[in-house]
Amino acid sequence: MTRIGILTSGGDCPGLNAVIRGAVLKGTEVHGQEFVGFLDGWRGLVEGDVIPLDRSRVRGLAQQGGTILGTSRFGPYQGPDGGAQNIQKTLDRLGIDAVIAIGGEGTAAASKRLFGEGIRIVGVPKTIDNDLSHTDYTFGFDTAVEIATVAIDRLRTTGNSHKRCMVLEVMGRHAGWIALHAGTAGGAHAILIPEHPESLEQICEWVTSVRDRGRSPMVVVAEGFTLPEMEEAYSTKGLDGFDRPRLGGIAEVLAPLIEKHTGVEARATVLGHIQRGGVPTAFDRVLATRLGMAVTDLVAEEDWGHMVALHGTDIARVDFDELAEPKYVPDERYQEMRILFG
Amino acid sequence: MTRIGILTSGGDCPGLNAVIRGAVLKGTEVHGQEFVGFLDGWRGLVEGDVIPLDRSRVRGLAQQGGTILGTSRFGPYQGPDGGAQNIQKTLDRLGIDAVIAIGGEGTAAASKRLFGEGIRIVGVPKTIDNDLSHTDYTFGFDTAVEIATVAIDRLRTTGNSHKRCMVLEVMGRHAGWIALHAGTAGGAHAILIPEHPESLEQICEWVTSVRDRGRSPMVVVAEGFTLPEMEEAYSTKGLDGFDRPRLGGIAEVLAPLIEKHTGVEARATVLGHIQRGGVPTAFDRVLATRLGMAVTDLVAEEDWGHMVALHGTDIARVDFDELAEPKYVPDERYQEMRILFG
Amino acid sequence: MTRIGILTSGGDCPGLNAVIRGAVLKGTEVHGQEFVGFLDGWRGLVEGDVIPLDRSRVRGLAQQGGTILGTSRFGPYQGPDGGAQNIQKTLDRLGIDAVIAIGGEGTAAASKRLFGEGIRIVGVPKTIDNDLSHTDYTFGFDTAVEIATVAIDRLRTTGNSHKRCMVLEVMGRHAGWIALHAGTAGGAHAILIPEHPESLEQICEWVTSVRDRGRSPMVVVAEGFTLPEMEEAYSTKGLDGFDRPRLGGIAEVLAPLIEKHTGVEARATVLGHIQRGGVPTAFDRVLATRLGMAVTDLVAEEDWGHMVALHGTDIARVDFDELAEPKYVPDERYQEMRILFG
Amino acid sequence: MTRIGILTSGGDCPGLNAVIRGAVLKGTEVHGQEFVGFLDGWRGLVEGDVIPLDRSRVRGLAQQGGTILGTSRFGPYQGPDGGAQNIQKTLDRLGIDAVIAIGGEGTAAASKRLFGEGIRIVGVPKTIDNDLSHTDYTFGFDTAVEIATVAIDRLRTTGNSHKRCMVLEVMGRHAGWIALHAGTAGGAHAILIPEHPESLEQICEWVTSVRDRGRSPMVVVAEGFTLPEMEEAYSTKGLDGFDRPRLGGIAEVLAPLIEKHTGVEARATVLGHIQRGGVPTAFDRVLATRLGMAVTDLVAEEDWGHMVALHGTDIARVDFDELAEPKYVPDERYQEMRILFG
Repeated sequence: MTRIGILTSGGDCPGLNAVIRGAVLKGTEVHGQEFVGFLDGWRGLVEGDVIPLDRSRVRGLAQQGGTILGTSRFGPYQGPDGGAQNIQKTLDRLGIDAVIAIGGEGTAAASKRLFGEGIRIVGVPKTIDNDLSHTDYTFGFDTAVEIATVAIDRLRTTGNSHKRCMVLEVMGRHAGWIALHAGTAGGAHAILIPEHPESLEQICEWVTSVRDRGRSPMVVVAEGFTLPEMEEAYSTKGLDGFDRPRLGGIAEVLAPLIEKHTGVEARATVLGHIQRGGVPTAFDRVLATRLGMAVTDLVAEEDWGHMVALHGTDIARVDFDELAEPKYVPDERYQEMRILFG
Repeated sequence: MTRIGILTSGGDCPGLNAVIRGAVLKGTEVHGQEFVGFLDGWRGLVEGDVIPLDRSRVRGLAQQGGTILGTSRFGPYQGPDGGAQNIQKTLDRLGIDAVIAIGGEGTAAASKRLFGEGIRIVGVPKTIDNDLSHTDYTFGFDTAVEIATVAIDRLRTTGNSHKRCMVLEVMGRHAGWIALHAGTAGGAHAILIPEHPESLEQICEWVTSVRDRGRSPMVVVAEGFTLPEMEEAYSTKGLDGFDRPRLGGIAEVLAPLIEKHTGVEARATVLGHIQRGGVPTAFDRVLATRLGMAVTDLVAEEDWGHMVALHGTDIARVDFDELAEPKYVPDERYQEMRILFG
Repeated sequence: MTRIGILTSGGDCPGLNAVIRGAVLKGTEVHGQEFVGFLDGWRGLVEGDVIPLDRSRVRGLAQQGGTILGTSRFGPYQGPDGGAQNIQKTLDRLGIDAVIAIGGEGTAAASKRLFGEGIRIVGVPKTIDNDLSHTDYTFGFDTAVEIATVAIDRLRTTGNSHKRCMVLEVMGRHAGWIALHAGTAGGAHAILIPEHPESLEQICEWVTSVRDRGRSPMVVVAEGFTLPEMEEAYSTKGLDGFDRPRLGGIAEVLAPLIEKHTGVEARATVLGHIQRGGVPTAFDRVLATRLGMAVTDLVAEEDWGHMVALHGTDIARVDFDELAEPKYVPDERYQEMRILFG
Repeated sequence: MTRIGILTSGGDCPGLNAVIRGAVLKGTEVHGQEFVGFLDGWRGLVEGDVIPLDRSRVRGLAQQGGTILGTSRFGPYQGPDGGAQNIQKTLDRLGIDAVIAIGGEGTAAASKRLFGEGIRIVGVPKTIDNDLSHTDYTFGFDTAVEIATVAIDRLRTTGNSHKRCMVLEVMGRHAGWIALHAGTAGGAHAILIPEHPESLEQICEWVTSVRDRGRSPMVVVAEGFTLPEMEEAYSTKGLDGFDRPRLGGIAEVLAPLIEKHTGVEARATVLGHIQRGGVPTAFDRVLATRLGMAVTDLVAEEDWGHMVALHGTDIARVDFDELAEPKYVPDERYQEMRILFG
């Protein structure tokens, strides 16, 4: 019987528990696999900190946010017990034949390296930011977009009542997918993303044109967006952690600038952590469940070094390094929506 | 300047207004098109009943459920003024150059015929049932699945408190997509769909096995599912309308049968119309907006006889008759999830 | 140290777990009490079926629907081990000093009788129907109203798109509180409740007047409403269980009658069990938590025979029999809202 | 026929439109009153900027957030046309017999003064902060609490996955009602409100005790809370606007302090404006509707100088100055919940 260890790494993401459940239920039922969970991501693997994962432990998890295994930003090459050789010894000691790593870009890169050094490892891509290549979507993204969209719906009425410009900052340090989708869904009048520079002048033009036809401007901005004219000044503020939303972020910089240049009262809201926690949407639960089920096939077929991914409505397999490529919002997708601005 | 008439036909579907908004905003801005709306689906076209649709009329519609144009089950070949020739005369009289028809299977088939008889028509596929081919998803489906999933989450606690089997009937007369996705998302112990027969014996086996490990069974059934052993008796009840959920439907037949054969108290809930109304999910708003925008390109390019569709993350074009083919849940998708039953 | 047994009886109700949590946390912390839970309502008490309830067991329960103790319609005078004398013996055997009974009208009445026969018992009123006297609200009611209101919001768009009359049946066998509040919140054009007869003629007049000004009528009906002109015919259908919504209920009777008499297409939806399960609203969580905390004071003060209740923003104490009096929608409250009909 | 002008003043608040609708529907139907709306609060009254408000204009507004009349922080004694004498002239010129002012503390105080100077004015209390005396609740509060509670539910899973302390800042400059209710509903381990000082030491003790039993601490803090030991330093930051949540507020001060003193990683979220916009809860819609209806009775009876209020389940009347008294969380209510901390 193949004994598999699962770990969840990086920032919290709605659907992690659904992946774990899907893997354990299918793996035990179809492939006769056995499962344990590494606690707190790679730390649990490196330190050999495991808990048993049987069918009864994962029942009812599809709708539960977070991860029962815990997560951290610890890496597999970190600490005295890190590195492929040590990890293989730990796996041997624990009688674990294979590893399923659920994580983002960093996890994919580290998994690739471990695989190259002989670890039997497969993966499931995870990021609310949706910025991994060779998969249509990652689970967690749909939930984050839904939460941001509901926030836009709420801010809109207040904007209209006060004739204010509302500026909502959503997650997306390097890629603007959440802003693009939530902004489109919420009918934003400007969507600002890291991939596409827009000048303050242009932003104020959109705001003014909305105000001029008697409506209240809604601006959605990804946390990683910067104004070209202020990049230098701004960069001195620093980015002090990977997934921590910068309270005092770009929305707080933008709102007073917009107010100053347009005369439209502007208010900033930084959505922050509520985008990455809680009950997943049905879309994310289905996607996460299917990915979790499919990754057990990779183990059964000893197809190491691959991750599962979504292509259309099919679950596909891709190399670790393909997935780790960043997926930015392509210019044509941004231009498509930019038509709706203003 | 091209003058376009838009119509929305068939059952209500979250996202219709977002399609209309996307088309009008892009069409006027990019292609210099002008828009009117036909009221109540094909009726408005056949009877020449139109309203103006300019940018200000469609602002703020992305998040609004229903259709500002109204909808009906009227067909374009219906009544004394129906048929391609009459319709062409009406279009000429109103100075309308092209038609955008937003509708389901029936609309696609009728549009195909009108196109064959010379009408300049293009289309946007619409069905909460997701049962149209050559598109990954139709807008409205994600919202219906989310609503059904939230209902499962609620029913689950009551099932557990009372140690009851809860039977939830969702929409899906011919295809079980809503049941498949919501059942998977909600962690159902049995999902019953029209495409795949399951015997009462098998259903009761799942229910019993869940009960035996101390949990409360959750059964999700599509309205079009029938038990093989009772098809004859059942069919005499008749289906009296196209989109009307059968109160007194299959869930009401199943629940007492399950209770009788397993001894587990069972309760039926028929979700009904709340699946097809109200605020669309962000996913559906984005999809509907993109489809509405893309369909104006077809008109601009005079690419008559086609509909827009979702392929992966791209908006594609397909023939009317391709789309009108029914898309059933394929056996492998059902078997994939069937592993999780019981 | 006082050892207390808690039970939850009757239909499922959002907030039950919050009551249990509030009682255990305050009781252990402030009064030095110890807790066990009787399983499945009175059955657990009668049969001596208990589980330990300490602080760690109840942590995190405020937001969880249902009851971890299970519930049933079993009564304390039922079976060979029922009755005050037997129950006292069971309590003595288990070393339990006092009982907290969380339940509705039946539970209050039974508790009153047990108290009269010497059982040290106090209570917490519970019903989603809100039909208990001497308390402003019962927990669970706010959640049920919110769910029904969201359903009305969804049905409204479909009604408008199709120009249909939507008829929504909500819970309320004897009292129309859910219908009154949800109908008011949802802007219903007619609210029909058991306490106040309305003729079919009057209902159709409201429907027609709404239709005549170009809108789509929304009718909200409590399951216990009957049309005076058809009471006899209707009563032959029978009411076969206490909390089972009658699929094939009054909405299904009303919709075709309205359609027949007004010519307005009408559709029925029976909301059913989703009204009584799942995550409680914040209002219900706060109310349930406060009631659970307060009931431990009654035990500490040996104030047997009383229940806790909500008066304004205060938690008060009332006799079992005061609470068991049914609380109907008073005529002035119905007339107040009736102004908005049509 | 009495002609009434309605205005909505101060910060946005879910339920404003429901009040307007309730007043217009009852006033026209029962009292034969006629209505206009002043735009942007007191500005519309002072400048005589009005729109007609008939039944058709207010239909469907119960579920709509914001205010169709607009709102502002303009006061009735502001500008060259302000003051009772000028306002009376404006009312005379417009043929308006009475004013209904919907607003908070400032509005109540200003209305009191206007009433004293002869203006025929009545009022409806409005604040999401719930800090007005002589009414059990104000509309908007329940919605704000629900939104904050849902945010806590989401943050909780992320806290647990990362073993972090999550610090959520909610509205409440002077009174901690939102924090108290949402914190209770969300099962917070510490609730910090302006009315009740807690030392950093005490807060860290709660955080540590939660961490020590293996759980993730949740701290809910009202924006107006300050740490006694840092009040001086903190006050220099200034409060630059009335309803603007301080991004960079108390949560951002607290989180790093907690992390530093306990070693538990801590993250801040500032909920901000999404607490005061969007669709109202059913509770707030019912309350707002009833208040709107009842305030027309005051006009009909010429009972000037009063506001409507909620006492238990009844709508009562209170003096302007009674209502304007601030309502703080009483010590016993805070102590009641403080039992649950840690």
